[in-house]
Amino acid sequence: MFESAELGHKIDKATYDKEVPQLREALLDAQFDLAEKAGFPVIILVGGVDGAGRGETVNLLNEWMDPRFIQTHGMGDPSDEEMERPMMWRFWRALPPKGKIGLFLGSWYTWPILNRVMGLTKPAELDQSLERAKRLEKMLTDEGALIIKFWLHLSKEMQEKRLKMLEGNPKTRWRVNKRDWEHYKRYDKFLTVNESVIRHTSTAEAPWIIIEGSDARFRSLTVGKVVLEALRKRLTETDKKKEPNVRAAPLLPSIDKLNILETLDLTQKLEKKKFDKELEKYQGKLAQLTLDPRFKDITVVAVFEGNDAAGKGGAIRRITSAVDARQYQVVPIAAPTEEERAQPYLWRFWRHIPRKGRITIFDRSWYGRVLVERVERYCSEFDWMRAYHEINDFEAQLARHQTVVVKFWLTISKEEQLRRFKEREKIGFKRFKITDEDWRNRDKWDAYEQAIGDMVDRTSTEAAPWTLVEANDKNFARIKVLKTLCQRIEAAMKKK
Amino acid sequence: MFESAELGHKIDKATYDKEVPQLREALLDAQFDLAEKAGFPVIILVGGVDGAGRGETVNLLNEWMDPRFIQTHGMGDPSDEEMERPMMWRFWRALPPKGKIGLFLGSWYTWPILNRVMGLTKPAELDQSLERAKRLEKMLTDEGALIIKFWLHLSKEMQEKRLKMLEGNPKTRWRVNKRDWEHYKRYDKFLTVNESVIRHTSTAEAPWIIIEGSDARFRSLTVGKVVLEALRKRLTETDKKKEPNVRAAPLLPSIDKLNILETLDLTQKLEKKKFDKELEKYQGKLAQLTLDPRFKDITVVAVFEGNDAAGKGGAIRRITSAVDARQYQVVPIAAPTEEERAQPYLWRFWRHIPRKGRITIFDRSWYGRVLVERVERYCSEFDWMRAYHEINDFEAQLARHQTVVVKFWLTISKEEQLRRFKEREKIGFKRFKITDEDWRNRDKWDAYEQAIGDMVDRTSTEAAPWTLVEANDKNFARIKVLKTLCQRIEAAMKKK
Repeated sequence: MFESAELGHKIDKATYDKEVPQLREALLDAQFDLAEKAGFPVIILVGGVDGAGRGETVNLLNEWMDPRFIQTHGMGDPSDEEMERPMMWRFWRALPPKGKIGLFLGSWYTWPILNRVMGLTKPAELDQSLERAKRLEKMLTDEGALIIKFWLHLSKEMQEKRLKMLEGNPKTRWRVNKRDWEHYKRYDKFLTVNESVIRHTSTAEAPWIIIEGSDARFRSLTVGKVVLEALRKRLTETDKKKEPNVRAAPLLPSIDKLNILETLDLTQKLEKKKFDKELEKYQGKLAQLTLDPRFKDITVVAVFEGNDAAGKGGAIRRITSAVDARQYQVVPIAAPTEEERAQPYLWRFWRHIPRKGRITIFDRSWYGRVLVERVERYCSEFDWMRAYHEINDFEAQLARHQTVVVKFWLTISKEEQLRRFKEREKIGFKRFKITDEDWRNRDKWDAYEQAIGDMVDRTSTEAAPWTLVEANDKNFARIKVLKTLCQRIEAAMKKK
Repeated sequence: MFESAELGHKIDKATYDKEVPQLREALLDAQFDLAEKAGFPVIILVGGVDGAGRGETVNLLNEWMDPRFIQTHGMGDPSDEEMERPMMWRFWRALPPKGKIGLFLGSWYTWPILNRVMGLTKPAELDQSLERAKRLEKMLTDEGALIIKFWLHLSKEMQEKRLKMLEGNPKTRWRVNKRDWEHYKRYDKFLTVNESVIRHTSTAEAPWIIIEGSDARFRSLTVGKVVLEALRKRLTETDKKKEPNVRAAPLLPSIDKLNILETLDLTQKLEKKKFDKELEKYQGKLAQLTLDPRFKDITVVAVFEGNDAAGKGGAIRRITSAVDARQYQVVPIAAPTEEERAQPYLWRFWRHIPRKGRITIFDRSWYGRVLVERVERYCSEFDWMRAYHEINDFEAQLARHQTVVVKFWLTISKEEQLRRFKEREKIGFKRFKITDEDWRNRDKWDAYEQAIGDMVDRTSTEAAPWTLVEANDKNFARIKVLKTLCQRIEAAMKKK
C-alpha cells in the first residue's frame, strides 16, 4: 500500500521554483471560483505519520491560497462539552460551509487509530469506527461536499531520520516531542493499523491520497496539484449541474391503502378526572427522574411530529412544566438560516444536541426531510431516499452515547383535524396556529399518510423507536407521551 | 423598594378568565409583528426569590405566546467550556436574534447575588459585577434590544408559606429542594443584597419590574401586560424610525495634521541575515512558550489591523508556522452572515473567543466599526462613537479572564502602498490581493488616518495596548510582531 511512497521522491529547487507561481495562481483562481459559486464545501484531511510534514502542509495551503476562505482545525483532545456529546459532534461543529475549505489536522480517524495501536480497543471496535467514518463521508459527499484525504507517509528509516533532523535544527526542534518518539517505537504496529484503515476507507467518494513526506518540495507540489485538480474537476461538474445517480429501488407501493396509522384506535379517551390524576402522577415521576443523580449521565432527545393541529405544543408543555428550566430546551424547527443552508441538512440538528443531564425537545425535526420535503418535492427523490439511513445513523450515534431518543407521532383523524381548524379560526389567541399552508397540507392527506408510513417503517429502530400517539383526545395523548417518556428514561437509568 | 410587592395583590378568577383571552391574542399579535419586522431582539430576565413563581412565569409566556419565536434559557452552572471564557460569554452565546424573544431564567445577576450572599465576594466586587451588567445592558439597548427585567418578590412570611404550600402539593413537591430552604434561612441577607442590586441596576434603558409573586393570577396577568405594553411601545417607536439621541461631543479635530502615525520611523529595516537569525530566535521562543505548561491557563487574542497591503497575512503566518495547529485559529473577518447581522455587532467576535491554552488571531476585527464603518458611513456617528467604550469593555473582560489581548496596527507609507499595489498587479498569485476597493480606500487616506488616530487614542489601554508596527520593511514588521507577542505572553506567565 505504501510502496510508491517509499521510493525517495524528490523535486529539485529549479523545477519547484518554476512550477509554484503557476500552481498558486491556478489554486487561487479555483478557490475564488469555489467561493463565488458557493456550490459545495471542501473538506481536506491531513493525516499521516509524525514528522511527515502534516503541520507544514496545513501552513502551506494557507500560504498558497487565500486564508480568508479556509478554516483550519487542529483537532486536539476534546473539551468537556465535546466529551458529553457523540464523538462526531465536534466535527459537525467544525464543518466548512459551501464555498469554503475546511482543513483538518486530526480527523475522525485519529482516535480510532491511536486507540487501536495503544491496545485500548479491539479490532472489531476499530472496524465499527471506520464504518461510521465511511457513512459520514458518504453523507457528506452525497450532500455535495468534496473530500480530499491526504496521508503523508514515511518509511521507518526515513521517520527516524526526519525526527532527528527536525530535532537537530533549532528552528524546528519544538516540533518534535516525547510522544513522537514513542510513536516511532511503535512504527510497525502503526503501519499495520494505518494500512488497514486506509484500505477500508479508500472509497470511490473519498479515496486516500498517499504521499511520501520526506522531501518538502515533492510533498508540497503534490499536495497543491491534487487539491487543484480535485477543485477543477468538481467545479466543472457543478457547472454541468449533473443530477446525482439515483438508483433507488421504488418503495413499497400502497396497493390496498391499509396504512399503519389506520390501525390506531383513535376513539381512545381519558376523562378529566382520570387525566388529572395521571397527569399529577407522571409529571411527578418525570420531575423525580430528572432530579435523580443518575440522570446526570443521560441525555434525552425528544422528537415531536404529527398532523397539523394534532396538539404537539400542548403535549410539549406538559413535559416542560414538570422539568427545571435549566434542564430542557425546546427547539422549534422553522425555515433554516443562511448558515444552516450552507451545511448538510442534519447540521442544524446536530448543533442543538444537548449535553448530559439535559433534555432537548424538537418541535418538528429532521423528519421534515422525509415528510414535507418529500411530499412537496422540495428535495430530490435521491435526497429523501438516502435520508432514511442517514437519520438512522444519526440516531444510532446518539443512542450509543447514552442518549434516550424518543420520537412521537401524534395522529388525529381527518375529521378531527377539520373540527380543530374551524375551532382555531374562531378563537382569537388560537387563530395564529392555522394558516393557508395548513389547509393546503390537508389536501395532500393521502400523500402524507404514505410518507408517514414509510417513515415509521424505515426509521423505527430498537435504539430509537417511534411511538404513535392517538391524539383525537388531547388528554389521552398527553398522558401517553408523558408515560412513554418516563418509561424510556427509567429504562435507561436502570441500565446504568 | 419592595413595599408595593408585599400588599397581598390578588386577582379573582372571574376577572382573570375574562382578561386572559384578550391578553393572549394581543400578545400574539405583537409577537408576530415583532417577528415579521425583525427589527430588534427582546430579552426578558425572570429573577426573584425562590418560590415566587419564576419557572411558572417562563412556562406561562411559552404557553401564551408562540414558542417558535421564544428561546428559553435556564442558565444553570456553567460548563467547562464556559468556565474557560469570560463570564459573559455564555450569555452572548444565548442572545436572541432580532425578531425573537430570549427568556432567561438565571441571568448575569444570579451569580453576583449568590456569591455576595454566601460571602464569597466583597461589596466592591459586587459593585463591579453590577457595573458590568449595566454596561452590557446599555450596549444591548443601544443596539436596539428591548430588555424587560422582572423581579418576583415575596415577603419572608409569604415565602415560607409558598414553599410549604408547594411542598404540600404532590403536583409541585419536586419544585422545592434543600437549597430553597437554605436560601429562605438567609432571607434577610438576600433582601439586602437584592435591594442593592435592583437599586443599582434599574436604569432608564432597562428598569426592574418588581411583581408580588404570591398570587399566580395577579403575577401572570401583570407579567403578560408588562410584556405586551413594552412590545407595543417599541414596535410603534420602530415604525417611526426614530434616530437615536446622539449627544456625542465632537472628537478632537485635527488642526495641525500631526497624527500619531506620522511619529513612526518608517525607514527602519532589518537585513536578511539579521532577520533570519531573529526569526529563528522568536519563533523558537513562541514555540517554547506555547508548549510551556503554564500556557494552559492563558488565552491569547491577537488582533491584526493595518493599511491595505501592509503585510498582515505574512506577519500572521510567521506566528502560525511556529505554533501547533491544535492551539491556534485564524479568524478572517469578512462580511457578517445573516445570523451575525441579527445580533449586536460584537456578537460575531465573542463567538470566536478561544478557550484556555489557545490563540485566536483576528485578521481584521471589531475595530472595523471605528475604521471602515466610520469612514464609509456604514453606521451612524452614535454607533461608532459608543463603540470605543464598548470595545474597551469587551477587551477588559477578556483581560480580566487571563487573556493576553495583543493588537497590532501595521503602518506603511502612502508611497510604499502604491509600490505594493502595482507589484501585486504584476504577480499572478498576488493579483487577488488587490481590488478596486483597495484603490478607493486609498483615496480616503486622510480620513482613515484621522480614524486610526482616534482609535489608538481611545482604545489603547493598559490591559490591551496597541502596538504600532512600522511595516515599510516586511522583515522589520514581522520581527516586531513576533517579539511583542512573545513578551506579552511571557509577562502574563510570570504573573501566574
